[in-house]
Order: sequence, then C-alpha cells, then structure tokens
Amino acid sequence: MNNGSSVAGLVETLRQDLDKYAVGERLPASRALVNRYRVSPVTVTRALAQLAAEGLVVTRPGAGSYRAAGGPAAVRRQADTSWQQVALSAEHSPDQVPRTVDASGLLATLAAPPAGVVQLHGGYLPTSLQPERALASALARAGRRPGAWNVPPLEGVAELRGWFAREIGGPGGPLTASDVLITAGGQSALTTALRALAPPGAPVLVESPTYPGVLAVARAAGLRPVPVPADADGVRPELLAEAFRATGARVFVCQPLFQNPTGGVLADDRRPAVLAAARSAGAFVVEDDFARRMAHEDAGPLPRTLAADDTEGVVVHLCSLTKITSPNLRVGALAARGPVLDRLRGNQIVDSFFVPRPLQEAALELVGAPAWPRHIRTVAAELRVRRDALVAALRRELPSLTIEQVPRGGFHLWLRLPDGADEQAVAAAALREGVAVAPGRPYFAAEPQGPHLRVSFALAEHTAELDEGVRRLRTACAQLGLPTA
Amino acid sequence: MNNGSSVAGLVETLRQDLDKYAVGERLPASRALVNRYRVSPVTVTRALAQLAAEGLVVTRPGAGSYRAAGGPAAVRRQADTSWQQVALSAEHSPDQVPRTVDASGLLATLAAPPAGVVQLHGGYLPTSLQPERALASALARAGRRPGAWNVPPLEGVAELRGWFAREIGGPGGPLTASDVLITAGGQSALTTALRALAPPGAPVLVESPTYPGVLAVARAAGLRPVPVPADADGVRPELLAEAFRATGARVFVCQPLFQNPTGGVLADDRRPAVLAAARSAGAFVVEDDFARRMAHEDAGPLPRTLAADDTEGVVVHLCSLTKITSPNLRVGALAARGPVLDRLRGNQIVDSFFVPRPLQEAALELVGAPAWPRHIRTVAAELRVRRDALVAALRRELPSLTIEQVPRGGFHLWLRLPDGADEQAVAAAALREGVAVAPGRPYFAAEPQGPHLRVSFALAEHTAELDEGVRRLRTACAQLGLPTA
Repeated sequence: MNNGSSVAGLVETLRQDLDKYAVGERLPASRALVNRYRVSPVTVTRALAQLAAEGLVVTRPGAGSYRAAGGPAAVRRQADTSWQQVALSAEHSPDQVPRTVDASGLLATLAAPPAGVVQLHGGYLPTSLQPERALASALARAGRRPGAWNVPPLEGVAELRGWFAREIGGPGGPLTASDVLITAGGQSALTTALRALAPPGAPVLVESPTYPGVLAVARAAGLRPVPVPADADGVRPELLAEAFRATGARVFVCQPLFQNPTGGVLADDRRPAVLAAARSAGAFVVEDDFARRMAHEDAGPLPRTLAADDTEGVVVHLCSLTKITSPNLRVGALAARGPVLDRLRGNQIVDSFFVPRPLQEAALELVGAPAWPRHIRTVAAELRVRRDALVAALRRELPSLTIEQVPRGGFHLWLRLPDGADEQAVAAAALREGVAVAPGRPYFAAEPQGPHLRVSFALAEHTAELDEGVRRLRTACAQLGLPTA
Repeated sequence: MNNGSSVAGLVETLRQDLDKYAVGERLPASRALVNRYRVSPVTVTRALAQLAAEGLVVTRPGAGSYRAAGGPAAVRRQADTSWQQVALSAEHSPDQVPRTVDASGLLATLAAPPAGVVQLHGGYLPTSLQPERALASALARAGRRPGAWNVPPLEGVAELRGWFAREIGGPGGPLTASDVLITAGGQSALTTALRALAPPGAPVLVESPTYPGVLAVARAAGLRPVPVPADADGVRPELLAEAFRATGARVFVCQPLFQNPTGGVLADDRRPAVLAAARSAGAFVVEDDFARRMAHEDAGPLPRTLAADDTEGVVVHLCSLTKITSPNLRVGALAARGPVLDRLRGNQIVDSFFVPRPLQEAALELVGAPAWPRHIRTVAAELRVRRDALVAALRRELPSLTIEQVPRGGFHLWLRLPDGADEQAVAAAALREGVAVAPGRPYFAAEPQGPHLRVSFALAEHTAELDEGVRRLRTACAQLGLPTA
C-alpha cells in the first residue's frame, strides 16, 4: 500500500549490494533489477534516484547507472552536535514559558506499522474507501484552470468558503462565506485556533479523555491543558463551569459529535449549558467537528453543530475534508463570528500564508460532484459493517474488555481493560502478535481513569482483517493472564 | 491576473443588482452576464455559485438562476460579539507571555492591489515567468501515481529529501536525505524553526533590517526579536557576538544570500565569524536561503550555503521552491544535523502532520525535468533585465532616492529616502497615483535607520510597467515636495 516503503526497502538492499561493484562499474539494467527484486519499474527508478541523490550512484540517461566514487558516506564529516542537547534543554528562565513537543501520541496513529501487522490503530479510511480516482481527476483539472497558480484569496477560495458556511451553519443558517477561513486540514485548524485564542502559559480546558493531537498542540504552544470529565453524553456542564471558575481559562476544546476516543455525543440538554458556561466565563468553545462526515449508516439524523446554535460568537468551529477523502487532501475550515475571525486569520497568514489554490479547487469540485453524497453513503454503510464486525469479534473473543459505548460515527471503539491491567504491556504484546492498537494513556491530560485501549475499525480493507486482529489481541491478552473467552 | 478578485467583483455587483428582480424571478442567462459585465464564463459561473452558497440565488441546472427568497442576509441573526474584544485582549497575567499577531507587513506584499495599480511591492514571479504548464502536468501525473494519496513518509518523500540535501549541502557534501525535513513552503519552515528553537518569552536575534515575516513569526510565537545591524556585506559579526552576550539568545535568523530587503550578501570573511559567534554562544543560526534560485544572470558563482560549511550542527537551513515556481507550490525544506532535527520534526507533525504527497511528487518531477535548469536560466535573465530597467528608471526620474545596493539576486531594491521624508506618506501618495510600494518601517525590529522604501521589479510583466510605476512614484514624491529630476 505505501509505495514509499518499498522504495526505501530497495534503496537499503542496493546500498549494501553496492560493495559488490567496483567504483565506476555499471549496475544491472533496470529491467534486471525489476526481475531480481520483484518490484515495479517505478520503484527501481526511484531507488536509483535516491542513491544518486546520496552520491552513491551516478545515473547517465540512456547509459544506465554506475557506482560512484565514495559519496557522502565516505567523505561526510561527522558533526559533533552534542552541544545541541544543552541548547535545546536550557529553556527555563523566569520570563520564559516551557513548552514540550511530544508527537508520540500522533505518531502512534500516523506512522506506518511493519508489513503484516493488522492496523487497529489508524485514523484514516482504507485505500479502497478513498475516492482516489475522483481526487486525481479533480486535482488534474484544478491545476489546469486559468489562474489556478495565482495567489488565492488569503482566506480561501470564495465558493469553498460558502460551501463550508452552508455545511456548518445549515442552509439559511447564521454563517456566510465571510465567516469561514480555509485551513490546511483539521490539525492546522486546531493549531491556529489554540495559538490565536490563548497566550503561552494560559490554561485551556479539554474533555477527559480527549484526542492526543489536542494535548500535543496545546503543550507545543505552551498552554496548560486542564481535563474536564466527559461521559457518554459528552462533557459535564456543571464541571465545565467549575473548571472555568477554578482556572480562569478562556478556551474549551471539545468534540460534541462522536468524540475521539469515546464516540460520545453531547446530549441535547447539555448543549445550551455548555455554551452558557463558556459565555459567562468570557470564553470560547472550540468545536472540533471532525467526525460529522463519518456518521454510520444507523446514526439517524445528526444534531446541528454548536456553531449553528451560537448567537454570541462563542463558538470557533473547525472541520476538515481530510478524513472523509484522503490524508493528502489537507483542506479544512475554521468558522467564527466577530473580531476573533481576524485573529484567526492573522495567525494563519503569519504561520503559513495560505492553502494552495489547486487543493482548494480540487476539494470544491469533489464536494460539488454528484458522486459526493454517494461517497458519504458508501462510507457510512462500510463503517457500520466494520464497526459491527469488530464489536462482535471483541464480545466473542475478549468479553473481559468492556466496550464503553458502541458509537454511531467515527472510526474507533474505546475499550476499558480490567482494573490493574497494564495497557502498555497489552499494546506491546499485541504488536508482537501482529496487531497495532493504541494504549489509552495519551488520551488523558492528567491521571487516566483506568487502563484503556483505542481500537480502530476504519483502516481494515475487509472484516476478516478485524477478526484476525482481535484473535491476535486475544493471544496477547492471554499471555498477560488477562481473562479471555 | 487574480481570478478570485474578478469573481468577488462580479459577486458584489450582482448582489446589489438582485433587488431589481422579484423573488423567484429568473436572472439573465450566463451568456448575457458574460457580455454585460465583460467577464469570462468561468467568472460568471463562480459568482453565481457563491451567491447560491450564500442563499441569495437558486440555480437550477439547465434552467438558469433565480432570485432566492431572502437568504441569510434576511434571516441571519445578528450576533453580539462585543465580549470577544475583552476575551482577546485580557491576555496579560504574570505567568503568561503576551504575543502579538500582526500580519500587516505580510499583507502589504501578499494582498492583491486594486486593478490598474502597478505592483512594485510583490514577492512572487509574474505569471508569465511561472512554469504553469509544467506545474499543471506534474500535478496531474502526481495525483494519478499508485500510492499518491496514501500517507507519505512524515518527514517527506525520500527522493525529494535527497534532492534538497544535494542542493543545500552540495554534491558529496555533508548532508544526506536523512538530514532534511520537507515543509509546506518557506514561511511554514520559518514558523517551525523559530517555535522549535526558542520558548515563548525568549529573545531571538535578527538582521536589521530584515524580512517582516521573520518578525511576525517571532512575535506570534511570543519571542522578542532583537535587531543586529547588517550592511552590504551582511550582519556585522562583532555586533552579533555582542548581541548574543547581551541577550543570552540561542537563535539568530539571517538571510546570507541576497538579503531581503537590502540584497546584501554575507562576505566570505564574515562567514566563519558568524558561525563561531553562534557556536560559542551555544546558539543556532537559522539560514533562510530564500533567494538562491533567484540569482540574476550577472550574479557569477554563488557562495555555498552556511549549512555546507557547518561542522557542528550550528546551522538550521531553510529554503523553498515556492518563489521560483508558483506561490501555490508550497514545498520547502528544513535541513539540520543532530538532535535538533527531531525537535523540528516533532513540531511540524504536531502543527500540521505532513505536506500533501501529490505536491511533493509534483515538485520532485519539476526539479528533475530537463526544463528545470532552463527555467532557472530564463528567470535569471529576466530578473536582470527587470532589475536594470528599474534601476535606470529610478536614477533617471528620482535621483534623490538612494539605491543603497544594486543586488545580484532576489526581487527587490532597497531605497533610502531623503532625511525627514515620510515614507508612509510617500507610499500612500504613490498608491493614489497608481503604484504600490512597501514602506520600510516593517523591516525594522526596533527604530528604523531612516526612511526607506522597498520596490520590487519581479512582478512586472514588462519593463514598460516598471517605467510607468516609477513615473507615478515620481509624481507622488513631487506632491510631497521631495526633490525629483
């Protein structure tokens, strides 16, 4: 699936084999390499290109590739960079705010696992569910449009802003194109929002448990995440109000719909209380609506966004097209009303200028195509099938793992392990057995509420993969003496 | 040139004209609108799409467009967002670092000026010099490659990292693909670097004058920019060493090649002194090598990057393909050796995950194509012609504006105004006369060294535009009583 990895593999093999050739000696022809290593011609070309880039191989168009004299490996001066450890750690002075950059929680779900490992940890759709052909055509057309390569409007292409405004606020709702800022996907939107709304050193309220990406962004910005307990009905408003009072925080980040990791949905009777608590604290609610387009077939009608019910500019809404299309269509939106939008806009321009126009145009074509609603329906059906298969397999093989809630949207199940179980050990044993799952610790801003695992049903190409993954997880649990069926 | 603006213009016109039609009444056919407003069919389609997005117009495929009933403008509830002013300003507490977000310096060069204005303020190539056709084909092919839409290696596509390593370190130089991180253009690279290297509240040394984007990024990150004087030979090493001692700064940002705005080049005899000053301060040198590919035809052989001469991991190098290709090919690189690269990588992943693979693949194809060196040569020749034309026009029409240095690379001339001249007044008068120039103030971290203007020769499609621009600038200066020829 990951083309890059096969190239990397061939590069390694060839690098070692290079010693078999004299400097200046011709390497086997590409055809020969294709046959010998059972890889595609593209892979061979790319591997040779990289070795050429590293100076180990010289490629003469038409004449083939030759071993180069030495290359960096031979001539490279080893740098003594040990001083950097001091420079990078000596970060604490009275007038400076320490901030920690920890991508591990994200790497756990972004990094590609070893081949053969069943991926129950991913946060994207499987290739088979990504609209690759439509994406390719849309991108090709976008790049050829007149003006496609000129600087776009800095806030984003007007029609795309209008589409997001309608999606977020509802038709005839409170939002118009001018309330929307196009962003480079959801993570960038979150970064822009938190950096714009809170100064380094400030507290920021988050749901407990919550998405590790929120915690990573907050800490990288020098903010102090403060957890507010959430249950199956979302955050608990009375504790939210208490947290605002106790911390003086001016920002609360939440995922009211199909929360990650619990799958919880903010209950109707809690919605006004949440907005009121924020308003009376003079605080913003960052609504991360990441999962609306990943509702399952049996989700029924979805609640409106908080932004659609917001009459006082309390809500800063963010969403993205990335998860429902491809990890590479990094196009999302921030929507807000009032002066805060200028603050968000200024932050984004300073950070990264704007989102490439061809990506915006491709996104616009994609969501405007007749196939779009069909794609959403297909994903909804497929996610429901996968979710049910994973739930059934877990209840069959691992009844001692409590499924705290069967979600009607999103990619994940949140599993409670028996008290005293070591989630890290389980995840490690599981990986040895050939299945990747995410331990629960990174989802808590402070002490965790017991041991958990997050397992994803999204990335599996077939339900058989999910069954096999659960069997492997069962073996891992058995090794650690956890009760299994 | 900017398609978006013509669409926006038509949208405004149509929005006003809407009152002339009854609700449900059919608007003129697209053809009629094309003729009436002298715009392209694409523009009409997009304008109608936006009005439809705003709920003001209903479009029935095949049947035309009709005025909608009311639309948000009518039903939209006005939000009272005045409380936000308090929330956004109440940012100072003993344990919080104030940071200011000011995009104005960047907007001065990014925002599209009114039609008919001669653009002597831009920072990108004119459309005629952008390799649009090659970009379009490369992007189209990239989107169709197998695996093009899968998550790329988080550090970037290996072959592209290798290409940057060779470009930055030189063939057989100290850098390999593993020392390079692909970024979403130069501004993002700068943001990642400054946030990774200095905590909020820390000082950061910058050249004086310097690129406003550096100051904006630093201040948005809560850093304190400290100016270090630079002259035609770049930063003055003895003052740099003094600044490190005085501030305890651990970061110095510089543009050693064709500095923006002065065009200065760090002199050979200063290079070791700059690296030594940083090293003995335990500090990093962020080398913003933004202009290497915009060297003019008469530049002669270019000095190596500081990164190529760095034996101790002092240099964090950044560069981008954006300026030499298109503002929308937001692909750049960070190169560094030692643990600092992990810090940079972590920051980028947390902020924005990764750069879309299709953009990386398109960039890779572009720089690997036979046409690439030809493109660089064409730009070099064209920039020299434009530079000479602007210099000649200024010396002819405005001898009282001192051209502090005729640069051999980049897009700009840095002009010293007569003492006591008001650069803001000149820029404003110039805009009234129909020419956009950048006042010098935003280029200084502290008090400016006298009044300046930055004028660009890059964005002009023809040298006649430059002549006309200078004539208009001359009129503006004359109005303010500045001596003219």
